[in-house]
Amino acid sequence: MKAMVYYGTNNIKLEEVAVPEVQPGTVLVKVKYTGICGTDLHEYHKQGFSKVPMILGHEITGEIVNIGESVSNYKVGDRVVIEPIITCNECSSCRKGNYNTCEHLQSYGLHHPGGFAEYILVKEKNLVPLPENMSYELAALVEPAAVAMQAVKSSALKIGDKAAVFGGGPIGLLVTQCAKAAGASQIIVVEIEEKRQQLALEMGADYVINPQKEDAVKRIRELSNGGVDVSFDAAGVEATFHAGLSSLIPGGELMIISVFTKPVAYNIEIQRLGERKINTSRAYKNIFPQVISLMEKGSININPIITSKISLKDIVEQGFNKLSSSKDECKILVSPE
Amino acid sequence: MKAMVYYGTNNIKLEEVAVPEVQPGTVLVKVKYTGICGTDLHEYHKQGFSKVPMILGHEITGEIVNIGESVSNYKVGDRVVIEPIITCNECSSCRKGNYNTCEHLQSYGLHHPGGFAEYILVKEKNLVPLPENMSYELAALVEPAAVAMQAVKSSALKIGDKAAVFGGGPIGLLVTQCAKAAGASQIIVVEIEEKRQQLALEMGADYVINPQKEDAVKRIRELSNGGVDVSFDAAGVEATFHAGLSSLIPGGELMIISVFTKPVAYNIEIQRLGERKINTSRAYKNIFPQVISLMEKGSININPIITSKISLKDIVEQGFNKLSSSKDECKILVSPE
Repeated sequence: MKAMVYYGTNNIKLEEVAVPEVQPGTVLVKVKYTGICGTDLHEYHKQGFSKVPMILGHEITGEIVNIGESVSNYKVGDRVVIEPIITCNECSSCRKGNYNTCEHLQSYGLHHPGGFAEYILVKEKNLVPLPENMSYELAALVEPAAVAMQAVKSSALKIGDKAAVFGGGPIGLLVTQCAKAAGASQIIVVEIEEKRQQLALEMGADYVINPQKEDAVKRIRELSNGGVDVSFDAAGVEATFHAGLSSLIPGGELMIISVFTKPVAYNIEIQRLGERKINTSRAYKNIFPQVISLMEKGSININPIITSKISLKDIVEQGFNKLSSSKDECKILVSPE
Repeated sequence: MKAMVYYGTNNIKLEEVAVPEVQPGTVLVKVKYTGICGTDLHEYHKQGFSKVPMILGHEITGEIVNIGESVSNYKVGDRVVIEPIITCNECSSCRKGNYNTCEHLQSYGLHHPGGFAEYILVKEKNLVPLPENMSYELAALVEPAAVAMQAVKSSALKIGDKAAVFGGGPIGLLVTQCAKAAGASQIIVVEIEEKRQQLALEMGADYVINPQKEDAVKRIRELSNGGVDVSFDAAGVEATFHAGLSSLIPGGELMIISVFTKPVAYNIEIQRLGERKINTSRAYKNIFPQVISLMEKGSININPIITSKISLKDIVEQGFNKLSSSKDECKILVSPE
């Protein structure tokens, strides 16, 4: 089969590799689409989490083409999305059901071969069934939508609350949709790029703010009449961290979703005087079926963020390079065909 | 009446000033004891929050000696403790009942004359009745105990959980007692001074750790078998902030009570990977009667932290200076007699 094999920083090659053989408890999935995540992009530019050689890609959907022994809930021909997290099932987090904070957390596409290939072998427990009427394009977005929905679910946001979202990339935009679906009465998105500002409005933002053109905190406090209940950080830089905290009403919560690659200078007193809280969300747990259900009902519409569909062979030029340089790209789906 | 009048950094004088005249809705309280708080000490050494000239002291108890018009729930001779917070009753925090984060928060002893005097004039709404059998010495500790109890109440701590307390000053020790009363199954106190370590054991700590002699995080993780559910920061320095976060199990909460006078370098990723939370607590709300009730029942015993009782005239030498220099002092009560 064809696969994009990653060998380390800026080194990825289209190669012919053997189709994996099914083992007991596993199924072979013919990949339809795999989305390019910020993690793939970051990994391509600088090797971090992954072992090499590795097939990257963890936002994966496809059709089952072969089944191992003792697989009982799926059959050949089933349409599935893959929840890529692999956990130890033994650490204290796993035993509490919080497998997203598993001490030995791994993932298809980082530690085990992922979706930038024609086929992927996965355990039955990593499969989630797709409804008949859901396109594979949308199905490829279930994974990032799960990240966003988990963050909204784990946050303090309740129906009627006001929210600010920092960063209009795929996760920020999906958080915007989920916050709207959760009943937020006002959603303000802070984003620099015009294309993403437009997408934010399509995805449910009531207002967008360009922090290069105006004081985001001041504007949020004006628009929300004193501050928002929850700020979501989907940008991950010191400026958004501070703005996120400073945009909150007393008692409000900053929910951090993004990876912060550097420490920030943190003035705790600003937080403490208003009894503000900082919460964090990592990946997801037990939420893929809920995401699919809300997508099916139309409660969350994630179609607008797909900006390109490309072929596996073009993943560097049309995928990684374009995401790094083009201001008009958001989510790019990769098809092995 | 005699009063210690504060004129700014390191400038406080025993003076004869007029006894305040009762106004409608206010009562005159003859002060029995006023505790010296870290805030008083900090204010004495460096003027910060207070207007001057000012009578400091906000941990106040005494007996009502005169009553203004329209005071209906108290009479001369009543024994009371004073909840010193003065709020605007109009801002969004006040309207939600969260008057401890009032935008215009003031306090007796910082913005209005406080307890380092023979008498204090306070509004009826700032009075809380004392039970017959509670000594004035203990009553003077209701205010700091309220700070501690509010932090435990606002934290994620539930019966059976494990807790670490950073800092064995009055607030850390009172948090220790309150965590015990809240049903914590293990309490570990991190404190450098030997006298305060002993007090911590008296106040309910199962273990004390001297962070100058051993790696506090490593030891906490060993003792708690992987981390505590809640860390309380009652020290307020970068080292305790980091240790507090790093001592938590995944999903655990760092509850910040202390004032951080400097920003800290904050590596958010350590928190996010374990979905840890940072919470903050400021002062108290509607909790004095609960504190008094638990003290009366013996559920919290705060007597051990009183290390000295001194006269008003000796407040600098026997109070502020001793707290700054002596390793054996914890809570010092000041009597105007």
